[in-house]
Amino acid sequence: MTGAAQRVWTTAPTTSDEWVARAREVAALLATDALARDRAGATPHAEVRLLKDSGLVTLLGPVEHGGGGQDWTTAYRVIREVAAGDGSIGQLIGYHYLWFWAARLVATPQQVVAVEERATRERWFFGGAVNPRDDDLVITDEGDEIVFTGRKSFSTGGKVSDVTVLEGVLEGSDKHIFAIVPSRQDAIVFNDDWDNLGQRLTESGSVEVNGVRVPWTQAAGYVDKEFRPRTYNTLNVPLIQLVFTNFYLGIAKGALTTATAYTRDRTRPWPYGGDNKESAAEEFHVLETYGDLQAKLWAAEALAERAAQLIERINAHPDEVTARERGEAAVVIAAAKQRAVDTGLEIGTRIFEVTGARASANSVGLDIFWRNIRTHSLHDPIAYKRAEVGRYALLGQVPEPTWYT
Amino acid sequence: MTGAAQRVWTTAPTTSDEWVARAREVAALLATDALARDRAGATPHAEVRLLKDSGLVTLLGPVEHGGGGQDWTTAYRVIREVAAGDGSIGQLIGYHYLWFWAARLVATPQQVVAVEERATRERWFFGGAVNPRDDDLVITDEGDEIVFTGRKSFSTGGKVSDVTVLEGVLEGSDKHIFAIVPSRQDAIVFNDDWDNLGQRLTESGSVEVNGVRVPWTQAAGYVDKEFRPRTYNTLNVPLIQLVFTNFYLGIAKGALTTATAYTRDRTRPWPYGGDNKESAAEEFHVLETYGDLQAKLWAAEALAERAAQLIERINAHPDEVTARERGEAAVVIAAAKQRAVDTGLEIGTRIFEVTGARASANSVGLDIFWRNIRTHSLHDPIAYKRAEVGRYALLGQVPEPTWYT
Amino acid sequence: MTGAAQRVWTTAPTTSDEWVARAREVAALLATDALARDRAGATPHAEVRLLKDSGLVTLLGPVEHGGGGQDWTTAYRVIREVAAGDGSIGQLIGYHYLWFWAARLVATPQQVVAVEERATRERWFFGGAVNPRDDDLVITDEGDEIVFTGRKSFSTGGKVSDVTVLEGVLEGSDKHIFAIVPSRQDAIVFNDDWDNLGQRLTESGSVEVNGVRVPWTQAAGYVDKEFRPRTYNTLNVPLIQLVFTNFYLGIAKGALTTATAYTRDRTRPWPYGGDNKESAAEEFHVLETYGDLQAKLWAAEALAERAAQLIERINAHPDEVTARERGEAAVVIAAAKQRAVDTGLEIGTRIFEVTGARASANSVGLDIFWRNIRTHSLHDPIAYKRAEVGRYALLGQVPEPTWYT
Amino acid sequence: MTGAAQRVWTTAPTTSDEWVARAREVAALLATDALARDRAGATPHAEVRLLKDSGLVTLLGPVEHGGGGQDWTTAYRVIREVAAGDGSIGQLIGYHYLWFWAARLVATPQQVVAVEERATRERWFFGGAVNPRDDDLVITDEGDEIVFTGRKSFSTGGKVSDVTVLEGVLEGSDKHIFAIVPSRQDAIVFNDDWDNLGQRLTESGSVEVNGVRVPWTQAAGYVDKEFRPRTYNTLNVPLIQLVFTNFYLGIAKGALTTATAYTRDRTRPWPYGGDNKESAAEEFHVLETYGDLQAKLWAAEALAERAAQLIERINAHPDEVTARERGEAAVVIAAAKQRAVDTGLEIGTRIFEVTGARASANSVGLDIFWRNIRTHSLHDPIAYKRAEVGRYALLGQVPEPTWYT
Repeated sequence: MTGAAQRVWTTAPTTSDEWVARAREVAALLATDALARDRAGATPHAEVRLLKDSGLVTLLGPVEHGGGGQDWTTAYRVIREVAAGDGSIGQLIGYHYLWFWAARLVATPQQVVAVEERATRERWFFGGAVNPRDDDLVITDEGDEIVFTGRKSFSTGGKVSDVTVLEGVLEGSDKHIFAIVPSRQDAIVFNDDWDNLGQRLTESGSVEVNGVRVPWTQAAGYVDKEFRPRTYNTLNVPLIQLVFTNFYLGIAKGALTTATAYTRDRTRPWPYGGDNKESAAEEFHVLETYGDLQAKLWAAEALAERAAQLIERINAHPDEVTARERGEAAVVIAAAKQRAVDTGLEIGTRIFEVTGARASANSVGLDIFWRNIRTHSLHDPIAYKRAEVGRYALLGQVPEPTWYT
Repeated sequence: MTGAAQRVWTTAPTTSDEWVARAREVAALLATDALARDRAGATPHAEVRLLKDSGLVTLLGPVEHGGGGQDWTTAYRVIREVAAGDGSIGQLIGYHYLWFWAARLVATPQQVVAVEERATRERWFFGGAVNPRDDDLVITDEGDEIVFTGRKSFSTGGKVSDVTVLEGVLEGSDKHIFAIVPSRQDAIVFNDDWDNLGQRLTESGSVEVNGVRVPWTQAAGYVDKEFRPRTYNTLNVPLIQLVFTNFYLGIAKGALTTATAYTRDRTRPWPYGGDNKESAAEEFHVLETYGDLQAKLWAAEALAERAAQLIERINAHPDEVTARERGEAAVVIAAAKQRAVDTGLEIGTRIFEVTGARASANSVGLDIFWRNIRTHSLHDPIAYKRAEVGRYALLGQVPEPTWYT
Repeated sequence: MTGAAQRVWTTAPTTSDEWVARAREVAALLATDALARDRAGATPHAEVRLLKDSGLVTLLGPVEHGGGGQDWTTAYRVIREVAAGDGSIGQLIGYHYLWFWAARLVATPQQVVAVEERATRERWFFGGAVNPRDDDLVITDEGDEIVFTGRKSFSTGGKVSDVTVLEGVLEGSDKHIFAIVPSRQDAIVFNDDWDNLGQRLTESGSVEVNGVRVPWTQAAGYVDKEFRPRTYNTLNVPLIQLVFTNFYLGIAKGALTTATAYTRDRTRPWPYGGDNKESAAEEFHVLETYGDLQAKLWAAEALAERAAQLIERINAHPDEVTARERGEAAVVIAAAKQRAVDTGLEIGTRIFEVTGARASANSVGLDIFWRNIRTHSLHDPIAYKRAEVGRYALLGQVPEPTWYT
Repeated sequence: MTGAAQRVWTTAPTTSDEWVARAREVAALLATDALARDRAGATPHAEVRLLKDSGLVTLLGPVEHGGGGQDWTTAYRVIREVAAGDGSIGQLIGYHYLWFWAARLVATPQQVVAVEERATRERWFFGGAVNPRDDDLVITDEGDEIVFTGRKSFSTGGKVSDVTVLEGVLEGSDKHIFAIVPSRQDAIVFNDDWDNLGQRLTESGSVEVNGVRVPWTQAAGYVDKEFRPRTYNTLNVPLIQLVFTNFYLGIAKGALTTATAYTRDRTRPWPYGGDNKESAAEEFHVLETYGDLQAKLWAAEALAERAAQLIERINAHPDEVTARERGEAAVVIAAAKQRAVDTGLEIGTRIFEVTGARASANSVGLDIFWRNIRTHSLHDPIAYKRAEVGRYALLGQVPEPTWYT
């Protein structure tokens, strides 16, 4: 909560591997008190500062403005590493990357350039209030400005963010408008009502939007009050689901790392008539269980990496991406998500069997991994992700893009 | 926490079915605030009083002294029902039955009669401090009395019990001695250090035993300082493992009951292009998941019932039981435990998938079931229970009786 | 193929346990060449004779006519035992019991008495041609007689049966009529086209029905050409699904019995650096695997036994059974079936891992168990059985009775 | 059996992708009669000719001698594709690549060059007789020649090979010697005793070696009767286990391809009260099952691809590879194998549930996939592969290289 923030880096990473190594350093710092902060429900101000100090917040930003200039493959790996240290912070950085990138999906080219420059130079930390299962915010047109009003049930990162992405529908039309607004203003109230099983430090509570004013010039993608964005705007879904996938994988990796250390250092071998082992790490069932879990995790990670390659392929020619190409990426991502969730839950449950009864003490806190994955993996039902992949395998059909589902 | 204690029953059940129904009433009362008490870490004084008021504590006691005179089959069902309402209290009543019964396994016939009379008439609630993985308590022989000294890591029920079962080894000998002593005495200090993931209200903290004095006449099974108990004393292991099994099953049942109510009342159907359902309860994956979980739970319950029959068969002729007969019961119980644990953990995890994202709110608290089963099922490694059943299936061998493992 | 038929029993069992023991004797004989007969696709004439000689065919028949007078609980156990020796013959005896009993479900009281007497005295072996997914046979009314014509895709037992149950719809009406007819007549042609993965000896090929004449007096349940059967006629579905369940369980038991013998006698221990075992039966993973499989099988068997109790409860008052009572039995049976299928397939697959590479030789033939369960368990999709149980667990609803699904 | 052999290609692939596409063409030809050949137990002479005609046998051979000059990543993909068409032929080409490559692991640099030239120019198809669980062949030193004598239980590809790799121990020493010898010679008798559940066309029967004479100059790695090979010789194990993994994955892919086609074309939808679908491909459980299976398969494939990268990294500097580097590759390969086997068996079993009862007809033959994977995956116990990965995850230890296990 405090120690984490104090690390100072004097150089910036340049290669992808260096960025991932940086993320690993950040994760190591986060891991030292992740459990204590989870218990305390501590708002992660210091941790967001750590993400800024380490340079990770501007990973995707243009190099000329001080950003890392990295691609999504690297971003996904960074999310995974950070989540291995602290699942909540892994989610925060992941959502941040999404919102940072969102301009590219809906804004005009000029807006994209402007937003990325400012967000990078000023090291904005992004939050968002865009849950599609709520009613939309209502937008009124007041001449040069639009005004957002309403409520959203969830706004991950809200309280610790510099800016928030809002989305609403213009009254009397079916126009959806996105805008980036300062998070700290009287017209936005982040409620302190995120009290859930896991991912407790993501500040995902509800938000009241009481007349947030935005100049029309900042309505993403709008020129003269008409929507004229860049040509593709449908990739958001796969991006976000692969963000989820990667912080699940990170959490699962954190679980294995924590559990193996416990088994090595603290688990007592179980007496087994005539074939007692000197250490728990020599018990066959312990080795077999860890091997099974590790193999499953590696497979899920490998599929997530393959999915990232498909994202890169699309990002290499974003304006010509076809619905088919996008859809096939979405299907592979849906598959990767399934493997991450199934594997993560299994790891979160079975690590106890190889650490032993005393590892159920709250001072050990091994449950945080199951709690974190269990909570966020409910975001949208995995059964429909299976059906989506099945429809592709069976009929060759790809899913329709939808808002965030 | 309070409401529970106020129920007054004016009649006592007589048949087994009536006792089970009584347990179900108790469970319903417990369920109303089980989650709140778990959150508060509330010492279950009122809940133990409820167990007394309902008559459940004397279920196994002789009818002539006001007990229920029931067999273990009924006791197991009662444990299951109570645990469905509150897993911790299910464990407490289960351990209580074990300690109540323990006299029969190690005491002299006269002691058994005396203990059961007093325990029944005075409605003792039993605790115990007998964890075999700790060092034994040390017993010194002071003429007419013996004196217990030492420490045990776990003493389920300690703080809410009337009497506690101690076990130690007589200094300078290899004599193990059990005794029932008043829980509230200066020489016994129950530490408030049970802070674990689940079964939080079982008061399973450590205990300091600082010179507890017991007359030799109350040293279970001893006559003139020599051990002359009833002829068999090896059944304790299967009894206890089937107690575990039944409160796991009860917790799993509570999980399904709670989750199905939530799905019916609160889960929103998921939009599924062209085939939307009007209620979540019509979604195919929801029905299939509940069906899979219910089928597994019924199968595990049915095996636990079969195991109870084997216990009854042994209890029908306790003095002639053979090692083989006892061992075969132990094997079936080990199998039932496996099914209960696997099924319970799966239910505890998958109920979230059919209740939805909002069911992860701490106000809902669906995680209590996974936490409860996950915690206690680590008592001894399930892998060795599998090996035990495997050894029987493959080689026809039955396990050696051991102390509580 | 030959040895089996030669056993002569001079006494008849009387108690349920004796009948089960008799079934076990029959199973032991069948097991000696079950694999060889499967390979040869041998029509089980000798095996049906064995079922007759052993008395098993008349297990359900009235005692006064020489039958066993047993209930369905015993019948289910017998099916399980026989299937443990030979899955195909287990299915044949199971279907036989269904058809033997079918009169009670659709015939008049007088017809029931007459059929059961004759079937018992003459030791009829029953087959049937009633697959509801085919078109119905067409029945024409020719005055005193009705005439069946058509084709059915499957007719288990046809070629080895004495009598066959036909079902059709009376032309120009919606009247369904059942009748028992001699299997060996020119108007019935059993095609030799059952060539499937498993249950190869069940003679489940298609059948041509070319004008089979039946007196109206033998149209089950009809009096003066009107349907006036006994009052309940809806129990057939649960009966049949529990028959399936029990021969799956028997096959799974046969798999474990065969595999454990192989592991004990023939599997070589695997070298494991520094911790080599002297026999495969001491390898931890072998013990754990067998323990897991045995525990699952016992649980599935215990649930099947519980389901049988529900059948008995209905059979104790067949004329007053309610739709609810019947439905609840059907749900438990659907659950038992799921556990039997899941467990059986897992056993059929994993036994190879504990018998070793050489156990894949066709001379060993361990695949017969997986083949047998895999084949018949497709009879109707298990996914819908899960949904059925789920609908009960979630909404308290019981399934509508349907013809054989 | 015949059609397959007749395809003529007039051009050779050059890139890796083209080679994989070629393999896919070969697979499509093989698939047309793979089941019929399996039923017939047909010795795959024509299929080996197809492998030669297509150029696949010389995939790894030097370009200057007409080979493909490809790396192992491509070889693994080719194995996977071929196995998707015919699991047996996938195994044959995989083993062929191993033996083709074996010279690099044990021979002198000069021998390697000579063997690869001749094998490529003459399009040798390799077999081997090196099962390490048998006794070694005995080698006698007869001056300029050595003579191999003995018996091996398994010799995959023997009967259809041009050359066979022998391995033995020089009498009176502990020197292991490998040599490549012509398969068709009087001193070698391939017995026709491979009659196993799956991979039926791999000609894996036993072989008698009755005095096969080999000049000392062809004793791999020997110079003046002393062993002086290239510096590393321990990579064989990971190579072979990843060959296995890839043909399992190919078989699993073939299973999904075959099953989805069946479901689309032939499976009838199941009646489901009030919510009937027009096609089985719209049933939710069908989509969910295929999605689950496809996701698992993709994950396993992705891990196999990652493992191949580790092989390439080693092959990039074969003479400096460390035990650690090799060991870490072996661990990832062991993990990939687990995922391939678990996934393949699950696919092989569950495809029946989404194709329906009629898909169990032997004319459909969907069981071939389960049979093929089940059989070969017993080669060495997967439990020890799990323990191997677990030992790495838990203790950071890598396995010792062993001969082929």
